[in-house]
Amino acid sequence: MCICVPDAGVRHLCTCAPRTARRYFRNRGQPGGCAISTVTVHFKPADVRVEVPAGTLLSDAATQAGIGLQIPCGGQGRCGRCVVVVESGAVRRHSTHRLSAEDVAAGYVLACQTTAEGDVVVTVPPQEKIERRITEGKRAVTVELPFTYNFHDQPLRKLVVNLAPPSLQEQTDDWSRLKRELSQRYGLEDVRISLSVLAKLGTVLRDGAWHATVVIELGTSGQSDAPPRIIDILPGEQMESLWGVAIDIGTTSNVVWLVDLVGGRVIKQAIDYNGQIARGEDVISRIIYASKGDGLRELQSLVLATLNRLLGQVASEQGISTAAIYRAVVAGNSTMIHLFAGLPPDSIRLMPFITAANEIPPFTAKEIGLDINAEASVDCLPGIGSYVGGDITSGVVSSGMCGTDALTLFGDIRTNGEMVLGDCTWLIACACSAGPAFEGAGVVHGMRATAGAIEEAWINREDHEVQYRVIDGERPRGLCGSGLISLLAEMFTSGVVDKSGNINLSLSTDRIRMGDHGAEYVIAWASESATGQDIAITAVDIDNLMRAKAAIYAGFAVLARSVGLTLADVDQVYIGGAFGQYINVERAIQIGMLPDMPYDQFVFMGNTSVRGAYFALVSDEMRKRVTDVGRMMTYLELSADNSFFEEFNAAMFLPHTDVDLFPSVHVAP
Amino acid sequence: MCICVPDAGVRHLCTCAPRTARRYFRNRGQPGGCAISTVTVHFKPADVRVEVPAGTLLSDAATQAGIGLQIPCGGQGRCGRCVVVVESGAVRRHSTHRLSAEDVAAGYVLACQTTAEGDVVVTVPPQEKIERRITEGKRAVTVELPFTYNFHDQPLRKLVVNLAPPSLQEQTDDWSRLKRELSQRYGLEDVRISLSVLAKLGTVLRDGAWHATVVIELGTSGQSDAPPRIIDILPGEQMESLWGVAIDIGTTSNVVWLVDLVGGRVIKQAIDYNGQIARGEDVISRIIYASKGDGLRELQSLVLATLNRLLGQVASEQGISTAAIYRAVVAGNSTMIHLFAGLPPDSIRLMPFITAANEIPPFTAKEIGLDINAEASVDCLPGIGSYVGGDITSGVVSSGMCGTDALTLFGDIRTNGEMVLGDCTWLIACACSAGPAFEGAGVVHGMRATAGAIEEAWINREDHEVQYRVIDGERPRGLCGSGLISLLAEMFTSGVVDKSGNINLSLSTDRIRMGDHGAEYVIAWASESATGQDIAITAVDIDNLMRAKAAIYAGFAVLARSVGLTLADVDQVYIGGAFGQYINVERAIQIGMLPDMPYDQFVFMGNTSVRGAYFALVSDEMRKRVTDVGRMMTYLELSADNSFFEEFNAAMFLPHTDVDLFPSVHVAP
Repeated sequence: MCICVPDAGVRHLCTCAPRTARRYFRNRGQPGGCAISTVTVHFKPADVRVEVPAGTLLSDAATQAGIGLQIPCGGQGRCGRCVVVVESGAVRRHSTHRLSAEDVAAGYVLACQTTAEGDVVVTVPPQEKIERRITEGKRAVTVELPFTYNFHDQPLRKLVVNLAPPSLQEQTDDWSRLKRELSQRYGLEDVRISLSVLAKLGTVLRDGAWHATVVIELGTSGQSDAPPRIIDILPGEQMESLWGVAIDIGTTSNVVWLVDLVGGRVIKQAIDYNGQIARGEDVISRIIYASKGDGLRELQSLVLATLNRLLGQVASEQGISTAAIYRAVVAGNSTMIHLFAGLPPDSIRLMPFITAANEIPPFTAKEIGLDINAEASVDCLPGIGSYVGGDITSGVVSSGMCGTDALTLFGDIRTNGEMVLGDCTWLIACACSAGPAFEGAGVVHGMRATAGAIEEAWINREDHEVQYRVIDGERPRGLCGSGLISLLAEMFTSGVVDKSGNINLSLSTDRIRMGDHGAEYVIAWASESATGQDIAITAVDIDNLMRAKAAIYAGFAVLARSVGLTLADVDQVYIGGAFGQYINVERAIQIGMLPDMPYDQFVFMGNTSVRGAYFALVSDEMRKRVTDVGRMMTYLELSADNSFFEEFNAAMFLPHTDVDLFPSVHVAP
Repeated sequence: MCICVPDAGVRHLCTCAPRTARRYFRNRGQPGGCAISTVTVHFKPADVRVEVPAGTLLSDAATQAGIGLQIPCGGQGRCGRCVVVVESGAVRRHSTHRLSAEDVAAGYVLACQTTAEGDVVVTVPPQEKIERRITEGKRAVTVELPFTYNFHDQPLRKLVVNLAPPSLQEQTDDWSRLKRELSQRYGLEDVRISLSVLAKLGTVLRDGAWHATVVIELGTSGQSDAPPRIIDILPGEQMESLWGVAIDIGTTSNVVWLVDLVGGRVIKQAIDYNGQIARGEDVISRIIYASKGDGLRELQSLVLATLNRLLGQVASEQGISTAAIYRAVVAGNSTMIHLFAGLPPDSIRLMPFITAANEIPPFTAKEIGLDINAEASVDCLPGIGSYVGGDITSGVVSSGMCGTDALTLFGDIRTNGEMVLGDCTWLIACACSAGPAFEGAGVVHGMRATAGAIEEAWINREDHEVQYRVIDGERPRGLCGSGLISLLAEMFTSGVVDKSGNINLSLSTDRIRMGDHGAEYVIAWASESATGQDIAITAVDIDNLMRAKAAIYAGFAVLARSVGLTLADVDQVYIGGAFGQYINVERAIQIGMLPDMPYDQFVFMGNTSVRGAYFALVSDEMRKRVTDVGRMMTYLELSADNSFFEEFNAAMFLPHTDVDLFPSVHVAP
C-alpha cells in the first residue's frame, strides 16, 4: 500500500517503494495520492511471490524474493546471464541485446532490462551456483591469475638465520655476523642494509636470542642484477606470511589490492576516490594546480592520504600491520605517477608534452610517506609518454593482448581515452583528450558515478517522456558518464536530437525548451530531483559529449589507419577501466563511440591497470613484460597527426558521417 | 707600574700585568700593594726592549716585543724551535728538554720554558721566516698531503651536458634524454638518480636551455663497482668548484675541514666542542644516556647541531652554500659514529662489547640531516671494534705507520687510550679505558683545556710553593689534562707525593692538608682563583690519574708483549689526538705514562683522525687503505687478557714498579 503524498503533476520519488525498486514514476496529475500500483511477481520453480511497485525490474524483484540471479555485468544488459522466461503477464523490455529473435519469441527476457508492468509469472532457468560477485567499486572482485603462481618469480624472501652469539673471543659486529650467515647459509653476497634497519638489528638479534627472520629483496624492480637488500628483520622465526600491494592511481579512483605473496592471491581490496579530485577533475587541471605555490606537495599529500587510508583499511581487515607490507607495485597515468612521486608534471601539459621520466627509478616507501614498511620498495610501472602511462602498459600486459595473435584494440576509457592496437608482435598507442565529459565534468548536470547519479535512461519514442535509473535508488542529482551515453543514444534513436546532435525544437513535449545554455531537454523535474532544480541536458553538453565520443572513435580509427588497416580488420576490442565496465555497448555503438562490431568481440576487463600491477607484483617475468611492452610500443602523437583531425571531424555526427560504418544503428524516423 | 691591590697573603692575579704575561705570583704578605716588580728584557739583534713583570716567559716577552719566535709545539718545551741565548741577567729554566749540556752551558734556553727574574739581555738566533702556524683549536693548521693529489682518484665529477631539446617528433622523457647523453658523451651506463634530483631535473634542463652541469659520484665509498649516481644537476655550465668535507667526531671536539676537490686542498677549518658533552663527558655516559627514552635521538641531534654549525661556518667563510658540498668522509670512535648515524650503541658497553656495525653502509646526508647537499654520500670510515674505531684506522693511515718498516707505536690519547703497534706488514691494536681524567673529568677540580684551565705547573723543590700557567691568561678555574700531568710530575719529582702517589703529609707547607677527600695539595688559593674556592688536587684525584696513566702505559706494554717484544724494541712513537699535542713528553715520561725514550723518537701528529678522513676524501686509494688497515689489524681485547692486569698493576707506581724502565727519571731526594 502506498501512503506517500506527492506534489501534483510531477515525477517524484515514491518513498513507500521498497528499497529494491529503483525506478520512479510519474504521478500523472492525480493530486493527493500516489498513483503507483503494486503488482505481484511469481517466481518459478522456487514458487515465491513478491509484491513490488509496477515498473520494478525483474532482477530487483528476484533479489527481493531471495532468488540470486547472476548479474556479472552489474545490470547493464550486457552479459545475458540474468535471462528468465516470462510465462504470463505484462512486462516491458528495455533492451533485448544478447537475445536472439527466437529467444524473444520464446518469452526470454533479460531480468535486469525488463520491468513488471502488471502481475507476472516468471520462470528462472537452472543456474550455476550464484557467486557473490559484486561489481568492482562496491565489493571485491575475484581475481584469478592467468598463469601459475611461482613464489620464486618475485623478489621478496623471508630467510631464517641462526647466528652464533658473540663472545670476548669472537667479537664480530652484528652486521658482519648477519652477512656471514646470509653468505654461508643462503649464498647471498654483497647484501645491502639501510641505516634504519641497521638501527634495529642489535635489538632484534638479542631479543630473538640470535635467531631471526630476515625480509630481503633480491634485485630491485626492473634491475634484477641489483644486490640483495634487507628490508626488515624480525626476532625469531616469523615465516607465516609475506605481503605486498598492487596499487592503481586513477585520476578519479584509487585502488589497493592486498596480495598474499605466499600463495600469490589477492586477499583484500579497497577503493576510494582520489583525494585530489577537489583540486581538479582531470589531469590538466591537476597539473595547473601543481604548478602553483605548494600545489605539488599538496596534491602528493592528498593522494597519499587516500592511499594510506586504503592501505590501513585492507591491513586492518586482514588483521596485520601496514609495516608488514614489504613491496608495492603502482600503476597510474603519467600525471598521477608524477604527483604521487612528487615530480613536477608541468612539461606533460606543455608542447611538446614531455614527462620527467617514463621509468621512475624505484624508491622506498619512506621517501614519499607511503604507509607500508618504510624500507619497502615502491615500483611505479613504466609508461611510454605523457599520455600513455604505466596504467596502459600494465593494462596491455594484464589484458593479454600482447600475447595473442588476434588483432586487438585495447582502450582504457577514463578521462583520457588511451588506446593501443596490435598483437604479440607489434603495438601502437595513442591518447586522445576525450575531456572529462564521461566523468560527469564539463556537463551542466554532470556528476561522478555515485549515489544519486542517473546511470541509464529510456525515452519513449512517441511522447518523448523519459524513464531513468539512479545509482543507489536515490532522488536524482545529475547524470554520470554511462547515464550521459545512454541518454544521448536514446535522444538520437528517439529523434530528440538529429545526427548532428541538434535538439529538435519542433517536437511537442515540454521537456524540450530553450534554457540559459540554448536548447535543452529536461530529464528530471525540480520536484523529483534531490537538488530541487530541473536536471537537463543542454546543447552545449551534447556538443561536449559529441567531442568526447568523436575523440575516442577517431583515436581508434587513426590507430588502425596509421598501420594501413581499418577497424573492420580488428578481431577484438578490449575495454579496460572501471568506467568501461559500466558502458552499455549497445548505447555506445549507437552514439558512434565504439566501433560497430558484434557484442561478443567486446571484452570488458574492469580495472586492467591494477590487475597489471598485481601481475607485476607476483611475477618478475610479468614485471619485465611491462617494461618490454613499453619499449616495443610505438607512440602516435595525435597533435602532430592531421589524420586525427579528419577522423575526429568525421566522427562529430551520430553515429558517424559514414553511416555504413554503423550498420546496426537504426534511427527512429 | 703596578696599581692593583690584592688581598694580603694570597696568590693573586695581577690584573695590571700585560696580556702576554701569563703567570701569576704570590703577594708574599705585603698588604696594600702588588709586590710584583717589572724587569726589562732586551732582545738582540733587533735591539728592542720591553718591560714585563718579573717571571714572564721569554717567549711572551718576545711576542710583546714584536719578535716572532717559532713555537710549533705551542709552548710546551717540546720542539726546541724557540731556542734563544741569554747573554746576561737572571732567568729561571723550567725545562731544558731538547737542550744538550753544552747548549745549557753556552747559555741557550727555551724561550717558552724560561722566565725573566731580573733585567736580561737575550739574543735571538737567525730564524726561518715565521709562519702563522697556530695550534689546532685556535686557528687553522696548514695541511699538506704526503702524496700528489690526483683528481681522478676520488669519485666526484662535474660533467657538462648539452642535450637536443625535445620536439613532437622526439618526445624522449627528460631522464632518458640525460642518460643517453651521459652514455654517448661520457660512456656512463646504468646511472642512478634519486626522486629529489629527478624532481628538479625538468626545471634545471629548461632553465639552462638544455645545457647543464651534472654532479655525479662514480661508485660509492668502499663499493667502487657501484653504479654512477647523480647527486645534483645545475643549469648551464658550473665547473668552477667542487667541494667535500672531512669530519672528525671526537667525544670532546668536532672538527670540520672544507676541502676543494679541484685542487685537493683544505681551504677552511672549524672546530668546536661536541654538543653532546652536556649529556656525558665520556663514551660510556653517552651510551647510558642514549639507552634511555629518546636519548639516542637527542644525542644524534646534538652532534648534528654542532656539525651543522661548523659546516655553516666554513661554507659561509668560503662564500658558498652548504648544498655545494657533495661528499663527507667522517672519522670517529665507534660510539660517536653510532650516535651520529642514529644506531643504538648499547652493546658497545656490554660484554662482549659488540658494535652494530664496524663498517657502516654509506648513506646520504638527508637520511640523518647533515647540512650538506641532501644527496651527498656520507662515508663513515670503518673501525675494527667497539673501542678501536674509524678514528684509529684513519689515524694509522694518515700517520703513515702502515707504510713504514720501522716498528711504530701509535697512540691516540683521548678519553680512551687507543693504541696500535706494528709496521707495514702487521698491526695489532688495543684500547684501554683510561677514563676521562685527562679530559678533566673524575678529578675534583678538573676541567677541559679551555680558558681558565691550569695547563702547566712548576713546584719549588725547597718550599713546595707552586707556579702555574693558565690558558688565555685568566684567573684559574681548574686543571686540564696537561696541567694534571704536569702537576703530578712536579709533585713526584719534588717529593710532594711518593712513588705510590701518596701525598707526603710531613712536609712543612700549608699547601698540603687534609680535606674532604683525604689528603690534598692546594695549587691556587680561593683569593686568586676565578671560582673563589681553593683549587686543589686530592688523593682520590691522584689515584684516578695514576689509573689513567697506568692504563695507557700497560696498553703500550701489553701490545708489545703480545707479539713477543718489549717497548725497547719500538723505533718510534706516534701520538695522535689534539690532546696528545699538548702533552709535555718530559712530564708524561716522569709519571710513567709514556715509555722512556729519547724525545726525537716521539712524533706528535695532532688530529690524525680528521687528517685520515681528508686523505680518504681526496683519494680512493687512501680510502681503500683505511678499510685494508682495519682488516689487517688484529684486535687485542684487554678485558680477556690477564697480562694487561699485570702490566697495569706494575704501572700503578711513579714512574713504574720497575724503575729500570725509566732511567731518565730522577726523583728529588
